[in-house]
Amino acid sequence: MENRTEISILGEFGLIDHLTKNFEIQNVSTVVGVGDDAAVIDHFGKQTIVTTDLLLEGIHFDLMYTPLKHLGYKAVIVNLSDVYAMNATPTQITISIGFSNRFSVEALDEFYEGVYIACEKHGVDLVGGDTSSSDKGFIISVAAIGEVSPDKFVKRSTAQKGDLICVSGDLGGAFLGLTLMEREKKIFLENPKVQPDLENEDYIVGRLLKPEARKDIIEFFAKNDIMPTSMMDISDGLSSEVLHLCKQSNLGCRIYEEKIPIHDLARKAAFKFGLDPTVCALNGGEDYELIFTLKQEDYDKITLNEEIAVVGYMAELEEGTKLLTKGGNTFDITAQGWNAFNK
Amino acid sequence: MENRTEISILGEFGLIDHLTKNFEIQNVSTVVGVGDDAAVIDHFGKQTIVTTDLLLEGIHFDLMYTPLKHLGYKAVIVNLSDVYAMNATPTQITISIGFSNRFSVEALDEFYEGVYIACEKHGVDLVGGDTSSSDKGFIISVAAIGEVSPDKFVKRSTAQKGDLICVSGDLGGAFLGLTLMEREKKIFLENPKVQPDLENEDYIVGRLLKPEARKDIIEFFAKNDIMPTSMMDISDGLSSEVLHLCKQSNLGCRIYEEKIPIHDLARKAAFKFGLDPTVCALNGGEDYELIFTLKQEDYDKITLNEEIAVVGYMAELEEGTKLLTKGGNTFDITAQGWNAFNK
Repeated sequence: MENRTEISILGEFGLIDHLTKNFEIQNVSTVVGVGDDAAVIDHFGKQTIVTTDLLLEGIHFDLMYTPLKHLGYKAVIVNLSDVYAMNATPTQITISIGFSNRFSVEALDEFYEGVYIACEKHGVDLVGGDTSSSDKGFIISVAAIGEVSPDKFVKRSTAQKGDLICVSGDLGGAFLGLTLMEREKKIFLENPKVQPDLENEDYIVGRLLKPEARKDIIEFFAKNDIMPTSMMDISDGLSSEVLHLCKQSNLGCRIYEEKIPIHDLARKAAFKFGLDPTVCALNGGEDYELIFTLKQEDYDKITLNEEIAVVGYMAELEEGTKLLTKGGNTFDITAQGWNAFNK
Repeated sequence: MENRTEISILGEFGLIDHLTKNFEIQNVSTVVGVGDDAAVIDHFGKQTIVTTDLLLEGIHFDLMYTPLKHLGYKAVIVNLSDVYAMNATPTQITISIGFSNRFSVEALDEFYEGVYIACEKHGVDLVGGDTSSSDKGFIISVAAIGEVSPDKFVKRSTAQKGDLICVSGDLGGAFLGLTLMEREKKIFLENPKVQPDLENEDYIVGRLLKPEARKDIIEFFAKNDIMPTSMMDISDGLSSEVLHLCKQSNLGCRIYEEKIPIHDLARKAAFKFGLDPTVCALNGGEDYELIFTLKQEDYDKITLNEEIAVVGYMAELEEGTKLLTKGGNTFDITAQGWNAFNK
């Protein structure tokens, strides 16, 4: 039988104490953390980064197939990914949650265990937040704070014509994981006796439930004196993000289908589901990889990193935003690429 | 007829552009605001303050009697109040909202108009956020960032025995406003033809729907070289907050009922509803005044400010946390003071 402690026994402040007591301060800049009205962060000659994301049950996650520990981990990671996308180092987060009385203390412990693991892995302090009862499912709001030297942060709007377009890791896996979980959920709801068939699908399920923020890429930049000309993280699919970089930098682009990095296991899963892997990479979200542009003369600096692929280049605005396919065709990249592409 | 634009026409990014286009940068420290992965804030020799609050429809507010403009204003104010409670100056906020398709662009405009007014009044920049669809009512998450000199921030845990306990403004009004609105709502639901009877209740309704964050008190401290020994804002009632200061400073206290500041119009409303005004001040929340402690030798410095009342003093831990009533009785102050007091 599950061990269940009612949250009402702890009370709100007892709950906060309970949930945060294992968080140790990791940064000397964290002067005041949890337990006061606000957190105090000390910075000297650095610039502070702030970002926030709201995650809602039924919209951003489905508790039917998302373990709470993974959810806590992911809620932090998606925010840290935004900080890395500024070429910055995350240092603190705040986390606010709303939850109904269907959640036990143990359930929230699980959630915070995931939060804790993500914080520890990235050297980040949890410095505040808010908890609330909710009659509206599980609600998560995370704000992440980071720091960067004034001359190092990288915006979306500063790409130049001719710059190489690069992406980290591989794309489309998280969307295929989602497709799999939604399929298994449907089967389970129709017949609860059928066991989920997740064999050999660890990779895509992991991409969905336990995404990583690319700290390693930012560290690689610092170590090799690489300064991207523009950067953002890939949360809504390659198409959407390339269009953001183009729009904000007032440029066009060329993307080569054959250069888009797709993991073999994602490719296999796509074929199994009857989906085009390229379409999954272009339009599936939640990969949390980085897309950035680089001066051509910096190309040699990145060739040693197998986690970085050059997928195209920035073009004149008048040249439009185009995908060149393996078959030699040219398509317009659109935010609704999924539909356009499936015609 | 109401002018209604569907949010779907704008799309998510169009909506963010739309909602934030009127926000002008006010602080030179705001290097990058809305429109990138995260906000960049430049600080030199200052300490950064971060705080966050989650506001949920049905839990924290009722849209039946809360105009969206007031809600936007209040969502910002309750966070700025936390920054002031650190003796700091708010400089930036992020705001994330979740909403269903029952909200039109005009409705969200109204909400952001309130946000804008609060930001302008307090010299704060909106630097980021997130918007999401929600099938769970209206959800608001605000994070506020502020700055303070390293030697000026004020915690809850640093009160000393013998320090004066002071509060700003007056207490209990917001709770009486809530009592009134809940009563009128009940009458309306029973008979929609009955017009709400809010005559002469502007004060308490205003305290509920349009609270103020006490920027003026923090400015008064700076101007008069006053350094509170501890401070927090009063969001859960005087009892609850006094107990926080005592617990975190490891002390007891004495509070004098006759010294608790209650507005005449709140007192009148309390009598009308058959409530004890002192109980409303002790246990009614949402006044967003400041409670702080002060060295006795600083007493002369605050006498000129009519917005500050001395309500008691910090005592030894062993002396307990006591309320001395007008009638000469002594009560234990408890977090459930409401029930204890009504016996």
